[in-house]
Amino acid sequence: MFQITIGSRVRKSPFFRSTVDAGVTAFTVYNHMYMPTSFGDHDAEYERLTTGVALWDVAAERQVEISGPDAAELTQRLSARNLKGMAVGRARYAPMCDHLGLLINDPVILRVAEDTFWISIADSDILLWAKAIAGERDADVTICEPDVSPLAIQGPKAINLARDLFGAELVDGLGFFHHAPLEIEGVPLVICRSGWSKQGGYELFLTDSTKGNELWDLVMAAGEQYGIGPGTPNHRERIESGLLSYASDNDIDTDPYEAMLGQYVSIDAEHGFIGKKALAERLADEPKRRTIVNVELIGDVPACESPWPATLDGQPAGQIRNSTWSPRLKKFIGIGFVPARLAVAGSVLEVDADGVAITATITREPFGTVRTH
Amino acid sequence: MFQITIGSRVRKSPFFRSTVDAGVTAFTVYNHMYMPTSFGDHDAEYERLTTGVALWDVAAERQVEISGPDAAELTQRLSARNLKGMAVGRARYAPMCDHLGLLINDPVILRVAEDTFWISIADSDILLWAKAIAGERDADVTICEPDVSPLAIQGPKAINLARDLFGAELVDGLGFFHHAPLEIEGVPLVICRSGWSKQGGYELFLTDSTKGNELWDLVMAAGEQYGIGPGTPNHRERIESGLLSYASDNDIDTDPYEAMLGQYVSIDAEHGFIGKKALAERLADEPKRRTIVNVELIGDVPACESPWPATLDGQPAGQIRNSTWSPRLKKFIGIGFVPARLAVAGSVLEVDADGVAITATITREPFGTVRTH
Repeated sequence: MFQITIGSRVRKSPFFRSTVDAGVTAFTVYNHMYMPTSFGDHDAEYERLTTGVALWDVAAERQVEISGPDAAELTQRLSARNLKGMAVGRARYAPMCDHLGLLINDPVILRVAEDTFWISIADSDILLWAKAIAGERDADVTICEPDVSPLAIQGPKAINLARDLFGAELVDGLGFFHHAPLEIEGVPLVICRSGWSKQGGYELFLTDSTKGNELWDLVMAAGEQYGIGPGTPNHRERIESGLLSYASDNDIDTDPYEAMLGQYVSIDAEHGFIGKKALAERLADEPKRRTIVNVELIGDVPACESPWPATLDGQPAGQIRNSTWSPRLKKFIGIGFVPARLAVAGSVLEVDADGVAITATITREPFGTVRTH
Repeated sequence: MFQITIGSRVRKSPFFRSTVDAGVTAFTVYNHMYMPTSFGDHDAEYERLTTGVALWDVAAERQVEISGPDAAELTQRLSARNLKGMAVGRARYAPMCDHLGLLINDPVILRVAEDTFWISIADSDILLWAKAIAGERDADVTICEPDVSPLAIQGPKAINLARDLFGAELVDGLGFFHHAPLEIEGVPLVICRSGWSKQGGYELFLTDSTKGNELWDLVMAAGEQYGIGPGTPNHRERIESGLLSYASDNDIDTDPYEAMLGQYVSIDAEHGFIGKKALAERLADEPKRRTIVNVELIGDVPACESPWPATLDGQPAGQIRNSTWSPRLKKFIGIGFVPARLAVAGSVLEVDADGVAITATITREPFGTVRTH
C-alpha cells in the first residue's frame, strides 16, 4: 500500500475534516480534489449502502456552471443528448463528445435557473472544454466552477432520512432527477434525487463550502436511527449495477456507443451537438468498434489495478478493466472492453491478470449501462 | 497518513514497477496518472538532487501532440509566448491562457518536427483544450496524447551520467532546452536538456512505453558510480529555486503576470494568442491584482496541506500556499499569493497555519519565477 501526498495542488473537500474524523483510510484524486475511497471496511460499507444508508463525500464531482443569455444554447451544443424540454428543477444524464465523437465526460446536467446550468462532471476538465467552446463562439455566457459541493446519501433508507431532514412533503414530491433548493439550520443546498448507485438516494449540493462539516454533522445525527455510516462511491455495487466509471471502464478513444451510452445520445434529433457528424461516421466503421461488456471471472482473481490483456483463441480480445467480488451474485465479476464483434454472450476470454491466468466469460450481449446518476 | 487507491481510472507510468521496486512510498495523481512523490527519505532525496544525480519518474508530465499543416499556427495561438523562430530540436517554456487571460497551464513546448509539436504539460487537461480550439477553428491538425513518457535525471552529476550513456559529443552539444532523438540498446527516446529543478539535468522522453523498466535499469546501472538513486520532483528544492508549481502556488483565477511569468508573455509581439486582449485589460485593473511572493516563515511551521489565510494589520492579505524547511537557507520558507499592493519586501503577515499562529515575511519585491523547465 502506498501513501497519498497531501498538499496545496490538490484541493480538499469542504467535508474533508469530517471524513478524517469518521476514519477515512484512503483517497483518490478526482477533478483535482481528494475524494475518499475507503473507510477501512469494505464489507460494512457495502452492507450499509445496500441495506441501510451511507454518507459519501462526493464534492469531487465538481460543477461547471454556465449562465447568461446564451447558456441554454451553449449547454445544448455541449451535450450529445437532447435537452429540449428540460425545465428548471430537472436534470439529465448527458454524455459529452469532442469534435471526433469521442466521449470526454458523462455528466449529469442540472437546470438550476432558466439561464443557468450546472454540469456535474466525471473526472476531466470540462471547465476548460466549455470555456474553449464559449470563447471561440463568443457566446454571451459566464462559465465558472461555483461554490457547490455534493454530499450523497445513498441506500434504501436514504428516503427516510431525507424525509426526517427536509420534510416528507418536499421529499415525496421529488421525482427521480428532480432537484430543489432549500436551507436547513442555516446551511444552503440543492437537493437532487440522484447518486452514483442503484440503491436510491439523494445528492445534497452544498452551496456554501464554509458549512461542510455542519452539513455532515446534521445528516449524521439525523441518520443515526437508520444506522448511517460513512462510505464512498462503491466499487462492488457499481459493477453489480452496471454504472459506467468514466476513464476506468473505457479509454480516451471511446465513443458513447462503445461505452454503452447510446440511449443517451440524440443522434437523430434536430439539435446539433459537438461531435454529431463524426459520431455517425464512427458508427459506420464496424471493424474498429469496441464495446463494454459484463464478465464473470473464474480463477484466483486479484484486484484489477490496471487493465489486463485478454485473448480469444490466442488472438487479442481487448482488456478486462475492472474486477470485484460480488456479494450479491456470490462470484467474481468485472468489466471488459472488447472488440464489438467478440462481444458474444458465453464467449470465454483468457486473461493475464498481472501474471495470474484467469478466464472471463461474457455474461450477456453488451448490456445497457443503466445509470441512476 | 492516508493510502492512495490503485485502480484502472488513474493510469500507471511505464516506470511504475521500477519505482515500486526502488521503494516508492507515496504518490500523487497528476494528469490522471500516478506520480511518485516520495521514496521515504526526504533528506537523502534532496542531497542526491543537489550534490549528485537523482532519477525521477515524471511520465505524468504528459505530452499533447499537435501535428499537421496547421500545427505551427495553432500551437502559436495556444501559446502566450511568441514561438517565432523556434527551430526543430528546440523548446520553450510557454504559458497558456484562456480567453479571459487566465493561466490554464505552463507547459514546455518542444518542436519535434517542422509540423509536429509536443506540449509538455502541467496538471490540467490541455488535450481537451487544444482539441476544442482546433475543432472550433476546423484546423488541419491531428491532436493526441502520444506514447511519450519523460524520465528525468537531475542534479550536478546528471551531465556526467548523460555523457556516459549517450556520448559526450551529443550531450556537450546540447544547449539548454535543446533536444534530440536517439536510441540506446533498442530503447527509443528524445533527450532534452531540461527538468523541473535548478540543479541541471535532462529529461529522457521515452517513446515506447513497453520499455520503461529497461530504460530505468539502464540509467540506474550507468549512474551507480555517481551515487544515483530514486527521487521525485522535489518540494524543498523547487521552492528554494523559485519554480512555479501550477495550481499549487496559484488558484484557477490567476493570470500569468500574477504567477510571475510575465517575462514569458509576448504581449507586445505581433502574434495573436488566446487571451491576449483580456490580459491587457486585466493588467490595467490594479486593485484586483495579486502576486506570488517568496516568504520566510517564523514559528512552529507545519507542512502546508492546503492554503493558509494571511492577514496584515488585521486585514485579509491573501494566502500562504506552500511551506518547507530549506536545507540551503537553514530556515522555513514558503510561497504566498497576496494582493499585489501588499507585496512589499519586509512586510510581515500573520498566518493561521491550520490553527498555529506563525508569521510570514515577504523576502523581496515579487520575485521573477525563473524556471529551468
